Amino acid sequence: MPSISNKGRQMPASPIRKLVPFAEAAKKRGVHVIHLNIGQPDIKTPKVALDAVRNHNIEVLEYSMTQGSEAYRKKIADYYAKQDIRVSSDEIIVTTGGSEALSFAMGTIMDNDDEIIIPEPFYANYNGFATAAGVKVKPIVSSIDDNFALPPISKFEELITPRTKAILICNPGNPTGYLYSKAEIEQLAELVKKHNLFLIADEVYREFAYDGREHYSILQLEGLEENAIVVDSVSKRYSMCGARIGCLISKNTEVIQTAMKFAQARLSPPTFAQIASEAALETPQEYFDNVITEYVARRDTLISELKKIDGVKVAVPQGAFYCVVELPIADADDFAQWLLENYELDGSTVMVAPAAGFYASPGLGKNQIRIAYVLEKEQLVKAVQILRSALNKYKD
Amino acid sequence: MPSISNKGRQMPASPIRKLVPFAEAAKKRGVHVIHLNIGQPDIKTPKVALDAVRNHNIEVLEYSMTQGSEAYRKKIADYYAKQDIRVSSDEIIVTTGGSEALSFAMGTIMDNDDEIIIPEPFYANYNGFATAAGVKVKPIVSSIDDNFALPPISKFEELITPRTKAILICNPGNPTGYLYSKAEIEQLAELVKKHNLFLIADEVYREFAYDGREHYSILQLEGLEENAIVVDSVSKRYSMCGARIGCLISKNTEVIQTAMKFAQARLSPPTFAQIASEAALETPQEYFDNVITEYVARRDTLISELKKIDGVKVAVPQGAFYCVVELPIADADDFAQWLLENYELDGSTVMVAPAAGFYASPGLGKNQIRIAYVLEKEQLVKAVQILRSALNKYKD
Ligand SMILES: Cc1ncc(COP(=O)(O)O)c(C=O)c1O
Ligand SMILES: Cc1ncc(COP(=O)(O)O)c(C=O)c1O
Repeated sequence: MPSISNKGRQMPASPIRKLVPFAEAAKKRGVHVIHLNIGQPDIKTPKVALDAVRNHNIEVLEYSMTQGSEAYRKKIADYYAKQDIRVSSDEIIVTTGGSEALSFAMGTIMDNDDEIIIPEPFYANYNGFATAAGVKVKPIVSSIDDNFALPPISKFEELITPRTKAILICNPGNPTGYLYSKAEIEQLAELVKKHNLFLIADEVYREFAYDGREHYSILQLEGLEENAIVVDSVSKRYSMCGARIGCLISKNTEVIQTAMKFAQARLSPPTFAQIASEAALETPQEYFDNVITEYVARRDTLISELKKIDGVKVAVPQGAFYCVVELPIADADDFAQWLLENYELDGSTVMVAPAAGFYASPGLGKNQIRIAYVLEKEQLVKAVQILRSALNKYKD
Repeated sequence: MPSISNKGRQMPASPIRKLVPFAEAAKKRGVHVIHLNIGQPDIKTPKVALDAVRNHNIEVLEYSMTQGSEAYRKKIADYYAKQDIRVSSDEIIVTTGGSEALSFAMGTIMDNDDEIIIPEPFYANYNGFATAAGVKVKPIVSSIDDNFALPPISKFEELITPRTKAILICNPGNPTGYLYSKAEIEQLAELVKKHNLFLIADEVYREFAYDGREHYSILQLEGLEENAIVVDSVSKRYSMCGARIGCLISKNTEVIQTAMKFAQARLSPPTFAQIASEAALETPQEYFDNVITEYVARRDTLISELKKIDGVKVAVPQGAFYCVVELPIADADDFAQWLLENYELDGSTVMVAPAAGFYASPGLGKNQIRIAYVLEKEQLVKAVQILRSALNKYKD
């Protein structure tokens, strides 16, 4: 019998998935589970996008262009132009989700055993894409005490070796909710230029910037053209995660040409999803205004409720829709499982994402959880109530 | 300025793409280009599939299950049951095209520098997926003189090393059109069991078997359960290449569990495409009967026309919709480019795929081309006329 000696090159299991069986068991017992664990928004997808698919007039559903349909790429370029970012349609590769753009980026600029530096905690699937590409993740810890701001540049420099090819940031951050300032981006830009590294910015939450702050893209920085690679996605922006459309953007032609070889191997991104995504660009501004207002209200509710719990520390997110919460416990993995297995308040419990899975350094984040505030305020209030009383019981 | 030292791990360029600029230039000169080079069928997608998408009633386009929607996987299992293949929905992972299933298979069972044996000529993108995964392709040449039948098993045994993890076949074959017999599959099964290897069968053309012959799947073979991995796709079956839906099937639970980690990293396959693919399973048998009749007629026309050309050798395909043709020339790359740059007959020329790109062994296939018979008979007749007169002129 053949065996997988490498166990799929030690692909990490998703930090959220391992709790799924316990959530399912809870539901079977009749317990209502409030999901704070996933970034699946409950926001409606723009009608214009869904209608475009309803009205398709395709007779032969052909492969689209490998790079994504030209019409769509031109409109993406227009979208960026409105955000003070000048890119041409040739500098964009439409991908199957931001996920595929991340894989392409890693494969394109790195060889087996090359290294990429990522501030942690970070989006857990970066580990998966790196492992699949044989790339080593070198984490730099950022701290809840300063809201997970950029760690000192000296810490990055300490980690740079001849095998370091890139620095990857997520802006605004999942799971941190941190929005990098222009000054922080400039510091990183200096660094990557000095060491001839690529700077990959995962900007899939770019529209989710709160409190009047503006997202600052690495593509807005002059002089960084050859180093900058941006990963974007329609998933969260238009609440259309199931479409599976994202893009990879770079002004470095060698990057685009090489990434195109990865793109060609998989032929093309999905056609219906491109139709929806192209139409989604017509979404009226009002939609976004409402969404932002809603997320800010949810965040404020969540944070103020959490702060009422003794011994809880919480980073205040300025973007995206996640926050990392430090709990007065030793092992959030155990606590999260216990919540699903042993706890209920008035027939309900909560499912949270233990934060250790968002750290690459072993042992970090063990007393932290990530909460996605993708639910209505009433649900969030109830969820925090459950957390509070559960913590009292759990600590006993 | 950062540079890509590995040039994207030396990802191979597609053998077809490099001619695209010449085809575009020809079109700009007003020359009509008949495309024999790509496997994009002109057949209409089943209405039931297109209508299902038109009638969707999605409000929030959420991520689907990572493994693919349960309803769809159950129906896929039913489809196989009708083909005398017993698999359960848990043994299926819905992927973004057969392409993604191929990537998952390579990543799951192989580590960097592991080896996979593939009879050549083979689907060129196998090179791309192997390179992306750091896996080495060990080709075994099959010959046009016996229609590209399975090479002797002794040739496989010669290539097996401790790093060999799998044998990959395409059945029926792209570019060969060869349909492996039950006896050939059994020989391979013996071999992989003896050496504890995986047998990956790319069966995306499974429904395209001609002349009353039946496709024999590796999943039909008893005792091969732990070794067999099948890659499938809706792309060609329902002429819905743009959907981007395929699947990976294995009864080996370690394979499925590990492949699931790759699947989780990329979150989910596209939702609209799953709706279309699920509905496509309702396509009436008549549709397939017509399609097969059409392809057989096209093949017969193509082959009989080709045989009229002096010095041309052609393998008779029993499946898929490609054939490899040996031409009385030294360098098909040069000839294919010349056709686009320098030749026209009554305002038309043809674009073919030079076959060297389907071989991994350097120097092989240089006098061969691949023709995809995805066009109507009249077009094929005209295309072969052009080829014939072009050959006369080219040889001068
Ligand atoms: C930070 C970040 N990047 C990328 C992705 C990938 O999303 P998708 O592939 O749906 O675009 C996600 C999804 O949650 C994310 O949170
Ligand atoms: C042999 C073979 N396998 C796999 C594929 C991948 O197709 P898809 O990703 O569209 O399912 C193709 C496409 O041409 C093919 O010819």
